[in-house]
Amino acid sequence: MEQNFKNISIIGLGLIGTSILHAIKARHEKDLITYVYDIDTNHSNIVLEMEIATFVCDNIHDAVKEADLVILAIPVGSMKTVASLISPSLKDGTVVTDTGSTKSSVINDVKPFIPKKVHFIPSHPLAGTEYSGPKSGFSSLFENRYWLIICDEQSNQTKNLAHFFQNLGSTVEIVSAEYHDKILAITSHLPHLIAYTIVGTASDLETDLKNDVIKFSASGFRDFTRIAASDPTMWRDVFLNNSEAVLEMLQRFNEDLSHLQKAIRKKEGSKLHSFFSRTRSIRKKIIEAGQN
Amino acid sequence: MEQNFKNISIIGLGLIGTSILHAIKARHEKDLITYVYDIDTNHSNIVLEMEIATFVCDNIHDAVKEADLVILAIPVGSMKTVASLISPSLKDGTVVTDTGSTKSSVINDVKPFIPKKVHFIPSHPLAGTEYSGPKSGFSSLFENRYWLIICDEQSNQTKNLAHFFQNLGSTVEIVSAEYHDKILAITSHLPHLIAYTIVGTASDLETDLKNDVIKFSASGFRDFTRIAASDPTMWRDVFLNNSEAVLEMLQRFNEDLSHLQKAIRKKEGSKLHSFFSRTRSIRKKIIEAGQN
Repeated sequence: MEQNFKNISIIGLGLIGTSILHAIKARHEKDLITYVYDIDTNHSNIVLEMEIATFVCDNIHDAVKEADLVILAIPVGSMKTVASLISPSLKDGTVVTDTGSTKSSVINDVKPFIPKKVHFIPSHPLAGTEYSGPKSGFSSLFENRYWLIICDEQSNQTKNLAHFFQNLGSTVEIVSAEYHDKILAITSHLPHLIAYTIVGTASDLETDLKNDVIKFSASGFRDFTRIAASDPTMWRDVFLNNSEAVLEMLQRFNEDLSHLQKAIRKKEGSKLHSFFSRTRSIRKKIIEAGQN
Repeated sequence: MEQNFKNISIIGLGLIGTSILHAIKARHEKDLITYVYDIDTNHSNIVLEMEIATFVCDNIHDAVKEADLVILAIPVGSMKTVASLISPSLKDGTVVTDTGSTKSSVINDVKPFIPKKVHFIPSHPLAGTEYSGPKSGFSSLFENRYWLIICDEQSNQTKNLAHFFQNLGSTVEIVSAEYHDKILAITSHLPHLIAYTIVGTASDLETDLKNDVIKFSASGFRDFTRIAASDPTMWRDVFLNNSEAVLEMLQRFNEDLSHLQKAIRKKEGSKLHSFFSRTRSIRKKIIEAGQN
């Protein structure tokens, strides 16, 4: 799809940032010039060696000053600082987007620093793995994954941005920030919190038992440890910045869990059976929706 | 490995029972004669059509009377009834095992019905998928998976049984029933309970939100729905029959979760970060142990 960005700036060279670079390279978007920056020079050097960016910049101003599109692929807790840093270097007409997992907080943090003639269009690719850092990126990360754009009304800039994401393999949908944060609280943030919790519970067991939990982890627990291996900084920031929606969903979860806990204690088999049957249908719908 | 069972009886033709049949067939154990039975004649007919058993029996007595080895591959809630049914038909010297996910309860339910000259050796393959029923079985289910045998001391019968399981591709370990139930409570039962809960919480959301949760389920939640699609009868029985160990682990989990909940509410970033960092190391150990 036609898109008009030529000079792309990527701030943050973790899983998302480097995957965008890999995807651009793999899809032979040869006309694109990429300027990249990471606060950690080790990350910059790794990207330099991989030869996936046109320019690896050693300061953030050089990385954004030529850009038609700036992508902030950084933890949501760093958005405010980075937005204030790049603000004076953005040229008129530039589109700034981000890839953060919380949207209301990012808008609050970034918007005040966006100059009048610059367009801030928040976004979020629903794609990731448990790996992090510049070596974890790969070109197909966004393929057949949703990339959500947050905007009230369509403009040439939002269409252009949508085409850019589609060219990386994504399916674009437009949602509001509040709705995004609610959906993500239940589909991503709460599952991560719970996976972190259960793996933490296991790691507090006495040594022998813990070692055997690791040894015999094949059924169920293993999946939780994969989720609970995700980047701690990113997830700390997610929970601090979407606390309201997460705490609301957590309350509902706690109510349901104590309902089941009671059914186990009282040996109410039919209650358990009907609960476990109901959840199967959600899985069926997900498989039908092609998201398995 | 050499094993001396020739006539194998399999009671229950679900995922585990049919996977044993597929594995026997795939590994060309041609000397083995299999007698199978399921209370659901639809299941028996499917196995008949698949031609993976020597004899598909229409009553449980015919299925066990010639057997050197009887494998009860049924929900743990049915063990007592089935043990009482087969008891008079077991010949001297026969080994009876089961594949149930709880062991103390199965021993309590089955042992009283085992005749003096019959050997009951409980076992549990740590292998499974979210699919159930006779069509869900496949020959490699047990490959490189642990198959736990419950016994106090080794005998010719336990060695023989271990060789039989090893021939299906499994790694055999011997543990006590109590230890098994504790390990499984944290590696399997609690993760399933929690996955069922969160998927249940999502299915109670208002319709629009629920549909979008399904649509955008890619990150985290999807894994939970897979776990929560497992057989409801099997899992009802697991929670009723390992309630003590599950409730104990659940209590620890609840304490850890409210600790994190409080940290989110109070915006204690460093507490969250250190918790999320700790859980990563467990994942590393699991990958090192080759159980990823």
